[in-house]
Amino acid sequence: MQIGKVIGTVVATRKDDSLVGSKLMITQPLNFKSEFDGKPLIAVDTVGAGIGELVIFTEGTAARNAAKKYDSSINAAIVGIVDNIDVWED
Amino acid sequence: MQIGKVIGTVVATRKDDSLVGSKLMITQPLNFKSEFDGKPLIAVDTVGAGIGELVIFTEGTAARNAAKKYDSSINAAIVGIVDNIDVWED
Amino acid sequence: MQIGKVIGTVVATRKDDSLVGSKLMITQPLNFKSEFDGKPLIAVDTVGAGIGELVIFTEGTAARNAAKKYDSSINAAIVGIVDNIDVWED
Amino acid sequence: MQIGKVIGTVVATRKDDSLVGSKLMITQPLNFKSEFDGKPLIAVDTVGAGIGELVIFTEGTAARNAAKKYDSSINAAIVGIVDNIDVWED
Amino acid sequence: MQIGKVIGTVVATRKDDSLVGSKLMITQPLNFKSEFDGKPLIAVDTVGAGIGELVIFTEGTAARNAAKKYDSSINAAIVGIVDNIDVWED
Repeated sequence: MQIGKVIGTVVATRKDDSLVGSKLMITQPLNFKSEFDGKPLIAVDTVGAGIGELVIFTEGTAARNAAKKYDSSINAAIVGIVDNIDVWED
Repeated sequence: MQIGKVIGTVVATRKDDSLVGSKLMITQPLNFKSEFDGKPLIAVDTVGAGIGELVIFTEGTAARNAAKKYDSSINAAIVGIVDNIDVWED
Repeated sequence: MQIGKVIGTVVATRKDDSLVGSKLMITQPLNFKSEFDGKPLIAVDTVGAGIGELVIFTEGTAARNAAKKYDSSINAAIVGIVDNIDVWED
Repeated sequence: MQIGKVIGTVVATRKDDSLVGSKLMITQPLNFKSEFDGKPLIAVDTVGAGIGELVIFTEGTAARNAAKKYDSSINAAIVGIVDNIDVWED
Repeated sequence: MQIGKVIGTVVATRKDDSLVGSKLMITQPLNFKSEFDGKPLIAVDTVGAGIGELVIFTEGTAARNAAKKYDSSINAAIVGIVDNIDVWED
């Protein structure tokens, strides 16, 4: 899983049936200093995340599992809202 | 999932049976400022996308699910046509 | 899926049983201007591709599906021979 | 699988049910000279790893297998604590 | 699949049960000029590979298939020992 920030939404009327009813959230991966790090992707929300929130996201089969849409075209999902990040470095 | 732009097509007469009947669309991944970002790939179309359209694409098992060809050699599929991208940044 | 060029072969006598009988083709990924782009990989041939041919290759479960070796150690396969690439760019 | 170092933890009260009960460890991939190499990720612990320990981590379905949570949203897991790394180079 | 070189081993007493009995080989990916290319990873050996040998390795479900440990936490495996690499370039 990775840390990300919800930075926007995508609207698509013509889409695969399995995406209907799922909020398509643009999620920007972050490093653990909360800096943008990597390419943003579209993740379906499964925990009620809002714009600007720090989230945990997962990809692949794990994302379909989180969305409880096992045979869907989903391959990224938001699965947690971060309360706290504690990093110890040497 | 990711945002992409359909920039072309590939024709291959000699191909795996499971690709027969699927339109092979060259899809260029974009960032959320709609700039080219990353390597183009071949995705099968599942929503009637045309050249130049802004689309949502998915990869892996999710792509086979979208194409309803679960045992196929497909590993990327177009699953939505973008109406709107709303990005909020700090 | 991606576009690639067959640039060589690998011979391995001691190998996993599931690879026996499959031609191991060194496949160089290309961009859509047919330039080398990315790391070459070993793909099993499923459509009779020859050295120097422009091919379509796929990865992961899709590759095992194409080879009809569902429980094998294959994770890349050539699944088409390119006739034509048409790219429209703005 | 890869070598990593546990450098922190993430706390998320609102999260996917399948993550409940799993320690979310921030794991920094290392190269084999134990230098930081690549993006840190969140892995669930399955072997009792502590902060600062050198670990083996795995990703994808392998991670769900290690956590014995086959239908979960887990896609990275710590699966070993390194005793020794022996590297021979020409 | 990819070409790699076995450059070392990892020892971990405390590890996931499914890794018990598997030799954990540090495998350095190579390009087809046999130069180091990419991040080394830990692959389980399935063909009796030794230190310094040129090998074929695979990742993901393919690796669990090769190791015949389908529900394990393995996600990389050595599946062949290279006899010969023939590369034709224009």
